[in-house]
Amino acid sequence: MTLGDCGEHQLIERLRFYCAPSMIGDDAAVFAPPQDQQMVFSTDVLVDGVHFSLGMASPVVTMTPFDVGWRAAAANLSDIAAMGATPIGMTVGMAAPSHCPVAVIEDIYQGLAACCHTYGTAIFGGDTCRSGVLSLSISILGAAPPERLIYRHTARPGDLILATGLHGAARAGLECLLQPEWAATVPTELRQLWVHAHQHPQPRLDVVQWLWQQSPAPRVSGMDSSDGLADAVLQICAASGVGAILSAEAIPKVPYLDPEQALAWALYGGEDFELVLCLPPAIAPDLCAMAGNHAAILGEITATPEVLLQQGKALRPLQHQHTFQHFSR
Amino acid sequence: MTLGDCGEHQLIERLRFYCAPSMIGDDAAVFAPPQDQQMVFSTDVLVDGVHFSLGMASPVVTMTPFDVGWRAAAANLSDIAAMGATPIGMTVGMAAPSHCPVAVIEDIYQGLAACCHTYGTAIFGGDTCRSGVLSLSISILGAAPPERLIYRHTARPGDLILATGLHGAARAGLECLLQPEWAATVPTELRQLWVHAHQHPQPRLDVVQWLWQQSPAPRVSGMDSSDGLADAVLQICAASGVGAILSAEAIPKVPYLDPEQALAWALYGGEDFELVLCLPPAIAPDLCAMAGNHAAILGEITATPEVLLQQGKALRPLQHQHTFQHFSR
Repeated sequence: MTLGDCGEHQLIERLRFYCAPSMIGDDAAVFAPPQDQQMVFSTDVLVDGVHFSLGMASPVVTMTPFDVGWRAAAANLSDIAAMGATPIGMTVGMAAPSHCPVAVIEDIYQGLAACCHTYGTAIFGGDTCRSGVLSLSISILGAAPPERLIYRHTARPGDLILATGLHGAARAGLECLLQPEWAATVPTELRQLWVHAHQHPQPRLDVVQWLWQQSPAPRVSGMDSSDGLADAVLQICAASGVGAILSAEAIPKVPYLDPEQALAWALYGGEDFELVLCLPPAIAPDLCAMAGNHAAILGEITATPEVLLQQGKALRPLQHQHTFQHFSR
Repeated sequence: MTLGDCGEHQLIERLRFYCAPSMIGDDAAVFAPPQDQQMVFSTDVLVDGVHFSLGMASPVVTMTPFDVGWRAAAANLSDIAAMGATPIGMTVGMAAPSHCPVAVIEDIYQGLAACCHTYGTAIFGGDTCRSGVLSLSISILGAAPPERLIYRHTARPGDLILATGLHGAARAGLECLLQPEWAATVPTELRQLWVHAHQHPQPRLDVVQWLWQQSPAPRVSGMDSSDGLADAVLQICAASGVGAILSAEAIPKVPYLDPEQALAWALYGGEDFELVLCLPPAIAPDLCAMAGNHAAILGEITATPEVLLQQGKALRPLQHQHTFQHFSR
C-alpha cells in the first residue's frame, strides 16, 4: 500500500503506535516540564538525496528506511548531548511522495522509535503530508540544570580538548556504500564497523550522564562533531575568542586507510556524532577513560585566537574546509 | 541571490535576525520552563503546492512568501489555542530548492516573525536545507495550568457548542484567488475580507486568555476548526462518546453566497482557525459576546452518539466529508 492509497486518518492511527501513548493530547502532546532545569529546543531537517539516499530521489541506496529513522533521531539526540542536556521527547514532521509505500514510513518510524527507546526518550507525535520529496524535520526537547549546560563560548586557555571517540568512521562507512569496489578491498570487520558508524550513530548521552555525576559541575565547553572535528574546534574557538593547538597524531582516526586520508576524514568527514569538549585538565583523563571508543585528548586551548594543527614538526593553521555546504552547487 | 549562491552560514546569519536573540544556544535554543504549568508540543508540516501555492510548484499563486510565513505560524498558534494554552516559542524546519531566492526565504521568516510578534511569542531557531520542494515544518511549544487545558474527550450532554467566529471565509477567499473571474463579481469589500481570512488567519489566543480569566476554571472541551467546522464537531463527539444537534441557521456563515454554498463552505471549507468549544450554558453567552467575529452558539451536545444537523424542519446526520485528504489521489 502506498501513501496515495492510505487515508490520512488511517496513516495517523498506524504511526501513533510508535508514539508515546502517555502523551494524551489532541492537537498537541502534553507533558509536565522538568523541575529546576533549563530546557533546550532544537530542529533538524533531513532530506532524501541530500542527507541520506533511500533510492527514491536517486538510484543510490545507502540506508534502509529503519536506518534513516535511527540516524535522524540520533542526530537530534546528539544536539541535546552537545548542550549537556538529556532528552525529553521529539516530534516528527514528515513529507513524503504519494507513491511512497506506507511500509517505508512505518520503517522510518520504527528506526526513530528504536533509537528513542535506546536513549530513554520517545516520539511525542508529529505530522505527515505529501510532497514530491521525502523529508524529515525532527524537533527535540531536552533539559539540564543550568550549571550543566554546555555552550561553545566558554572555552578558556589551558583547557584540554577532548574528542569522545573515533573520527572518520562514518565517512569511511559512507564511502564503502558509495564505492563497493573499493569496499571489497577493506577487511570485512572494519567495513562493517564503518558502515555501522554511518548508519547507526550513537549520540553520546552517556558522556552527559557521567558529567552530571561530577560534583561540583565541571566547567565544560563544547559541541558535537556532526559537521566534522575541524568544524567543531573552529566553532568553539571562534565563539570563545580563543585559539587551539591540535596534535594530528593524537586524533583518534580509523585504521587501515592511508594516514593522510584517515586524517582528512577524521577532521572533515562529519557525522561521527561524538562530542568535542574543552575542559580543565583535572577531569579530562577520567572522561577519556569513561568515554571509550578511542576517546582522546587532542590538544589544548590557547590565548592566541589561531587554531593550529601540529603534524610531526610542522605547525599549520587548521583549515575551515566544509564537508557539506547545503546550498552550494 | 538564490539559495544556491548563498553559503549555509551566511543564510543562518540572515535568518537569525528574525529569531529571538535572547535564546542563546548553539545546537539548541535555551529557555526556562513555565512554573506550575503543563507543556504542550506540536508539529505541523506545510508543503508548497499542497498547503499553499508560491508558484514554485505550480503556476498558481495564492499567497506571497510573507503570507505563507504568517499562515504557517498562525496554524501552529491555533493548535496551541485549541489546547487552551499560550505559546512559548516555535522552531522552523525549512527545505527549499537551490533556485529559490534568498529573499523568498527571508520573506517567509518575516511573515513567521510578524505573526509570532503579534501573538507575543517568538521564533527560537531552526534549520534550513535544500530539497526539490519548498516545505516548512513548524514545531511549537505552549503551556497552560493543568486545569485550563482543553481536550476533545471531555464534552458532556447539555454543553452548548460554540464557534468563536465566522466559518467559510477562508475557503471563499481561496476560491476568489483560484477563480478570478468569479471573484470579480463579488463586492470588493467582501472579497478583501475573505482573501484576508485565507492569507492572514487569526489564531484565537484571545479566547484562551479570556477563559484563563474565568474563575473557577470552566469545564471546556474543544478543538480548532482548521479542518472544517463539521470535522471539529464530529471529532469532539467521537472522542467524548456523545452526540450533538447543530442548527444550520445558527452557524455563522459568509454573506452574499448561495445559502447552500455558504453552509457547505462553513462546514467543510476548513482553515478558518476558529475554536469550536463545548461548555456549560452559563458562560457560553459571555464568551460569544467576547469572541466577536459573528461568534455563535451552534447547538448542543446530546447523550445519543449521533451528530445531527437541523435545517428548517429537516434533521439529518452531519456528514464526515473531508475537505482535504492528504494522500488521496
